Amino acid sequence: MRERALRAIAECRHIATMSEEPERITRRFLTPPVGDVHAHLRGRMEALGMTVRVDAAGNLRGLWQPAGTNGKRLVMGSHIDTVPDAGAFDGVLGVTLAIELVGVAQELGLPLAIEVIAFSEEEGVRFGVPFLGSRAVAGRFDAALLALTDSEGVTLEGAIRAFGLDPGKVSEAEVDESAIGFFEIHIEQGPVLEAEGLTVVVVTVIVGQTRLSLEFGGQANHAGTTPMRLRRDALAAAAEWISGVESLARSTDGLVATVGEIAVWPNAANVIPGSAKVSLDIRHALDAARKAAVIELLAQARTIAKRRGLSVKWEQQMDQAAVAMDARLTSLLVNAIADLDFPAKTMPSGAGHDAMVMAARVPAAMLFLRSPGGISHHPDETVREEDVEAALEVGRGFLQRLSA
Amino acid sequence: MRERALRAIAECRHIATMSEEPERITRRFLTPPVGDVHAHLRGRMEALGMTVRVDAAGNLRGLWQPAGTNGKRLVMGSHIDTVPDAGAFDGVLGVTLAIELVGVAQELGLPLAIEVIAFSEEEGVRFGVPFLGSRAVAGRFDAALLALTDSEGVTLEGAIRAFGLDPGKVSEAEVDESAIGFFEIHIEQGPVLEAEGLTVVVVTVIVGQTRLSLEFGGQANHAGTTPMRLRRDALAAAAEWISGVESLARSTDGLVATVGEIAVWPNAANVIPGSAKVSLDIRHALDAARKAAVIELLAQARTIAKRRGLSVKWEQQMDQAAVAMDARLTSLLVNAIADLDFPAKTMPSGAGHDAMVMAARVPAAMLFLRSPGGISHHPDETVREEDVEAALEVGRGFLQRLSA
Repeated sequence: MRERALRAIAECRHIATMSEEPERITRRFLTPPVGDVHAHLRGRMEALGMTVRVDAAGNLRGLWQPAGTNGKRLVMGSHIDTVPDAGAFDGVLGVTLAIELVGVAQELGLPLAIEVIAFSEEEGVRFGVPFLGSRAVAGRFDAALLALTDSEGVTLEGAIRAFGLDPGKVSEAEVDESAIGFFEIHIEQGPVLEAEGLTVVVVTVIVGQTRLSLEFGGQANHAGTTPMRLRRDALAAAAEWISGVESLARSTDGLVATVGEIAVWPNAANVIPGSAKVSLDIRHALDAARKAAVIELLAQARTIAKRRGLSVKWEQQMDQAAVAMDARLTSLLVNAIADLDFPAKTMPSGAGHDAMVMAARVPAAMLFLRSPGGISHHPDETVREEDVEAALEVGRGFLQRLSA
Repeated sequence: MRERALRAIAECRHIATMSEEPERITRRFLTPPVGDVHAHLRGRMEALGMTVRVDAAGNLRGLWQPAGTNGKRLVMGSHIDTVPDAGAFDGVLGVTLAIELVGVAQELGLPLAIEVIAFSEEEGVRFGVPFLGSRAVAGRFDAALLALTDSEGVTLEGAIRAFGLDPGKVSEAEVDESAIGFFEIHIEQGPVLEAEGLTVVVVTVIVGQTRLSLEFGGQANHAGTTPMRLRRDALAAAAEWISGVESLARSTDGLVATVGEIAVWPNAANVIPGSAKVSLDIRHALDAARKAAVIELLAQARTIAKRRGLSVKWEQQMDQAAVAMDARLTSLLVNAIADLDFPAKTMPSGAGHDAMVMAARVPAAMLFLRSPGGISHHPDETVREEDVEAALEVGRGFLQRLSA
């Protein structure tokens, strides 16, 4: 397996050279380097005897269909688009590992059909909407999305057409009833596995997420002539609330809550802020816990505003339910890990992944492997060889159990 | 006096029509409308028998020199430049009231020479440095300032020359030994008089001011995949510190402290802030109290950073000592108020004024009158007729006492 692990890593490094920019890894939906990636992966798949096609959503799909299957197949894969100035492994590693696992299945002679999908889009960079590839495969692609435009005014429809595909056929990308499940391997993109000394972990659920913006309105005034008791300082109110957000999340198991964005007006050193607008991103594996936290934090905002004589208003921008991975597939993964004498730990995923979208259509399972330093979406993103090897071994056990 | 008050207000409203912009009051240092203001005020001064000149710093100066004086004179005035989109009374009212007080002195036949100065610059808008006019009159104008450039690349020297003045003669604008004091009437530009039901108040000191910027450095990370216990959130640290700033100022008599400016990086809703930079503006009438507060707040910042595993650094941008008004002139003002059966209250000024600069050269005194709503630097800036009348009555008593 070490050889397969090293090759999967080397493939990621090679694919990283296919970029829109000379010195950085940037590969947005259906830009020219995506064609290079397709050509490269097609060669790898065909060398394994797979049948390869590109669907109308730009997903590269290779089918391994051995004799003796029952007509059902497992779908594996991840995405090949990247954020700007990305690392080499986010998404891509899930594709190169899926191809290696086809090789493993062939070696073992497993009677299992496998479709490997290199999803065209997951990051949402080019058109502002993520998961375009897996939405199509899951049959959740709204045709209205075709009217989206990128920063240069190109429509999604035009981008698909420019890549030589027929945007009228995106609906045909949906998997049929013969797909029995979806399995995605992905780097954690977080610090938990490293902090706990784990190589891999089984994802049980993609957390639900609420995003909102909240604005305190006070009174802009002169920083020198306005005594403290006569102030209505919007930033002081926001600061109090931000501390409350952090405090609630720290004291609530499994909750993460982040104020990542702030804008104050007029934002001058000698003027008391008249308004302060902040973002809230809050996530939990249990929707009820998340919603309760949102209610609590909005109540805190009202209390703070009332006590300080300020106004407060908010706007919810996202309310996405948690998505559970399939219990049966997940238990197969857990057992595969336990058999290898690794700690068979599970965790929720704090970020969205193609498996979340695919779960709406087929039973889905997901395996994380350790992200050194927790670093992702950055050129320093990397993986350890032994972790990649562990992921392949877990994948082998998973395929064996699924074929049994 | 009501007639004089109404005229002083009407004069301000008229001067407000002399603007760089058609719909807003904007009158920066030596821009064309300043010439219109000079022409208008010159006419008013000459009608009172005053001798008028414009010094090389662009200050309009009218001298009333009655017979029988001892060769000494009182200087009165304020500034005629404005911030962009200003109100009609900031500065200008101090000039129109000074002219009315010359008329009062004439009526009373006071043996007092009076020089009224309409300072050319106080706000610091055009060249980024305030008090250009009073610096020259106080003999505190550094010739290096002449190299300053405005947003259009015009130097201060060039602006003076373009106005028909000789920048080589700015040093000649300094008042000579015959000036016995400076008296400025100004709107409060704050909410204190209104909150306390006062028409006018005597300023005892211009507060000292420290300005610094402070930056917390943490680790930018994914808002979904980074558990609370593994975060180094720079904005959460800044929020805790901002609350500490407010708390210290609220509990320290006479202290005002403001965080008016904030910038976080990368400032994205789904990314934990990796850095947060904030401004601090802190003022107190006692320099020792101000410095102690700065030391305390920097210690708090270090404590917060250490506990959270962050870095913190700061840069001091201003450290300006408090400037006391002259005790004798101030007591004359207080007595003049008491004689009118007004509450003879005093207060520090939280903002800088020409009187602060003049105090470096001559004994200075200052009178505030109520700012309705505490509003200034805004088109809604206004004054009450009875307050303007009260200021004139206090001014009359002050001139009488000074002449006695």
